Amino acid sequence: GSKLKIFSLNSNYPLAQEIAEVMGVELGKSSVKHFSDGEIQISIEESIRGCDVFIVQSTSAPVNEHLMELLIMVDAVKRASARTVNVVMPYYGYARQDRKAKAREPITAKLVANLLETAGATRVIVLDLHAPQIQGFFDILIDHLMAVPLLSEYFNNKLAGEDVVVVSPDHGGVTRARKMAERLKAPIAIIDKRRPKPNVAEVMNIVGNVEGKVCILIDDIIDTAGTITIGANALMEAGAKDVYACCSHPVLSGPAIERIENSAIKELVVTNTIQLAEEKLSPKIKQLSVANLMAEAISRVYENKSVSTLFD
Amino acid sequence: GSKLKIFSLNSNYPLAQEIAEVMGVELGKSSVKHFSDGEIQISIEESIRGCDVFIVQSTSAPVNEHLMELLIMVDAVKRASARTVNVVMPYYGYARQDRKAKAREPITAKLVANLLETAGATRVIVLDLHAPQIQGFFDILIDHLMAVPLLSEYFNNKLAGEDVVVVSPDHGGVTRARKMAERLKAPIAIIDKRRPKPNVAEVMNIVGNVEGKVCILIDDIIDTAGTITIGANALMEAGAKDVYACCSHPVLSGPAIERIENSAIKELVVTNTIQLAEEKLSPKIKQLSVANLMAEAISRVYENKSVSTLFD
Ligand SMILES: Nc1ncnc2c1ncn2[C@@H]1O[C@H](COP(=O)(O)O)[C@@H](O)[C@H]1O
Ligand SMILES: Nc1ncnc2c1ncn2[C@@H]1O[C@H](COP(=O)(O)O)[C@@H](O)[C@H]1O
Repeated sequence: GSKLKIFSLNSNYPLAQEIAEVMGVELGKSSVKHFSDGEIQISIEESIRGCDVFIVQSTSAPVNEHLMELLIMVDAVKRASARTVNVVMPYYGYARQDRKAKAREPITAKLVANLLETAGATRVIVLDLHAPQIQGFFDILIDHLMAVPLLSEYFNNKLAGEDVVVVSPDHGGVTRARKMAERLKAPIAIIDKRRPKPNVAEVMNIVGNVEGKVCILIDDIIDTAGTITIGANALMEAGAKDVYACCSHPVLSGPAIERIENSAIKELVVTNTIQLAEEKLSPKIKQLSVANLMAEAISRVYENKSVSTLFD
Repeated sequence: GSKLKIFSLNSNYPLAQEIAEVMGVELGKSSVKHFSDGEIQISIEESIRGCDVFIVQSTSAPVNEHLMELLIMVDAVKRASARTVNVVMPYYGYARQDRKAKAREPITAKLVANLLETAGATRVIVLDLHAPQIQGFFDILIDHLMAVPLLSEYFNNKLAGEDVVVVSPDHGGVTRARKMAERLKAPIAIIDKRRPKPNVAEVMNIVGNVEGKVCILIDDIIDTAGTITIGANALMEAGAKDVYACCSHPVLSGPAIERIENSAIKELVVTNTIQLAEEKLSPKIKQLSVANLMAEAISRVYENKSVSTLFD
C-alpha cells in the first residue's frame, strides 16, 4: 500500500506531535515561515509522492492566518504528487457562520468548505462541528468525530456516586446534552432563556430538577463564556450542589477567562482541539487530549476502515 | 441597465473613496468587523440585487486578513443576488509565488486565482501583475492595467530637458524598462548582477551608458528595497548624474524605508495601489494616484467597453 505521512502546521503542533507519537510515526518534515512582507512560505522537506498525507491544522485564532496556511499546504501537497490529501481539522473555524441569519450575510462555513476542496483536499476529518449540517457543505468525504465519549468518561470517573444532571445551556444544545446524559445514566435539564419584552433583561428559567444535584453544563464551543457562566450562576441559585462545565472547543476569547474564574463553575473541562495560550491556562480549566481519538480516525481512514463505528 | 455599486474593504479605503469620487458615485454601505475571536463579520447594508458590484481590495499586508475579507465579501455579494461580482485588486498579493522554483512548493498565485473564482468573482481588474502570465491563472475575465503611462508622465514633466536613461534593476524587468523608455524617448540600461563563484559577493555590471545621465530605475514591486538601493548606488559609482526610482507597488517591508533613505536614490515614485502606513511616508517617496485609471477601467467594464484600448 501507499505510505502514511502526517504533517503539522502552526495552530496546534503539540496535538499533531501527540497524534504522531500515539501512531508510532514521525511528523513529516516541513516548514511554514513568512517572507518579509508577511506572505506565507511553505516548504515540504521530504518526498511525499504517492503517499496518503494527513495535515493537522485547527482554524483557531488567528483564523485567517491558520486557514491560509492550510490552503497553501494543501496546494503544495497536491502538487507534490500525494495520493490523497487529508485535512485533519480538530477545530473548524467560521462554523458559526453557517446560514444567512440576516439578509446579505455570507455563509462563511460553506465558503471554507469550498476553499478546501478547491485547494485540493480529498477528505476532511473534523470534530464536533457547530452544526452537523456543515458535513453536507462538502462534496468530498468527511468524518465527524465526537468529544462526548471522552468528556463523559472523565466525569464518570470524577463524579462516581454523585447525583448528576447534565444541563444544556440553551435549546440548541439539547441533543448534545442527551448524548452525554445517556453515557452517564443521568437525567437532563435545560436553561431556558426568555426575554419578556424587547430591551428587558433575559430571565433564566431552568427546565428540569437541579436542586441538590451536581450539574454538568455542556456546550460545543465556549467563546466569550457569557452563556455558560450566567447559566452556571443560575444553576447555583436554583440550588445545585456543584456546577461543572465542559465543551469540545475552548475558543475562550475576550473576557472568557475572567468570567470563568469569577463564576460558580467549579471546573471547566475542555479538549485540546485548540491549543491554549499560556495566559489562558487557568487552574479551573482541565484539558483532555483528543490525540488517541484523532489517531484512531487517521489509522482507520488510512486502512480504509469505517470511522463511523468508532463510537459504537 | 443594471446599477453600479462600488464597495471598499479595509486594505485601501482612501483609494476606493477617490475612485468613487472620480466616478461621481457614493461608496456602497457595508461593514467589515471582527467577532471577539477574530473571525471576520461582514455585512452589506444596502440592497445590491441585480447590480454590477465592484469590490476594491488590495491583498497587501496583512495579506491573509485582506484576502479572507475579500473572499467572504465576494461570497456575501454573490448570495445577495448581484448580477456581476467584479474584484478590483490594485495589488495582487502572493504574485511572486507564481511557479514551482523548487520541488514541493505551492503555486500560491494560482491558488488565490482559484479561491476568488470559487468564492464567486465573475471578473477581476488588476494592475501590473508580477508576471503577466498570472492572467492565465484565471478562467474568468481579467483586465490588466499598467502604471507605466502614469509614472512616465510624471518623469516627462519632472525631468524635461534632462539627459535621461531608464534602467532595469535586473534581467527580468527589461520589458518594463523598455515600455517606459519608449514613452520618455530615452535609451535603456540594465544592471547585470553576476556571482563570479559560489559564496563570492555579486558584481554589478552596468550594460549601457549611464555616465552623466539622469537614471530612472523601474521595478514592479519594491519590497525590502535591497535590489533597487544597491542598483542605485552602483549607478552613482558608474558616474550617473542623479538616480530616481519608481515602481507600481510599494510593498516596502522590513528595512525598506531605512535603505531608501540611506541610498543614492533622489526620489522614489510609487503609486497608491498599496496604502502606505504613516511610518513609511518618507520625504523621499512620492505617491501618484491610480484612481483615475481604476475609475476609467471600472466605467468601461460597467459599460461593456474595451479596457485593453485604455493605453492606445
Ligand atoms: N465568530 C463568532 N463569534 C460570535 N458570534 C458569531 C461568530 N460567528 C458567527 N456568529 C454569530 O453567531 C450566531 C450563530 O450562532 P448559533 O445560533 O449558536 O448557531 C449568528 O448570529 C452569527 O452571526
Ligand atoms: N512575498 C515574497 N517575498 C519575497 N520573496 C518572495 C515572496 N514570494 C515569493 N518569493 C520568492 O521570490 C522568487 C520569485 O521572484 P521573481 O524571481 O522576482 O519572480 C521566488 O524564489 C519566491 O520564492
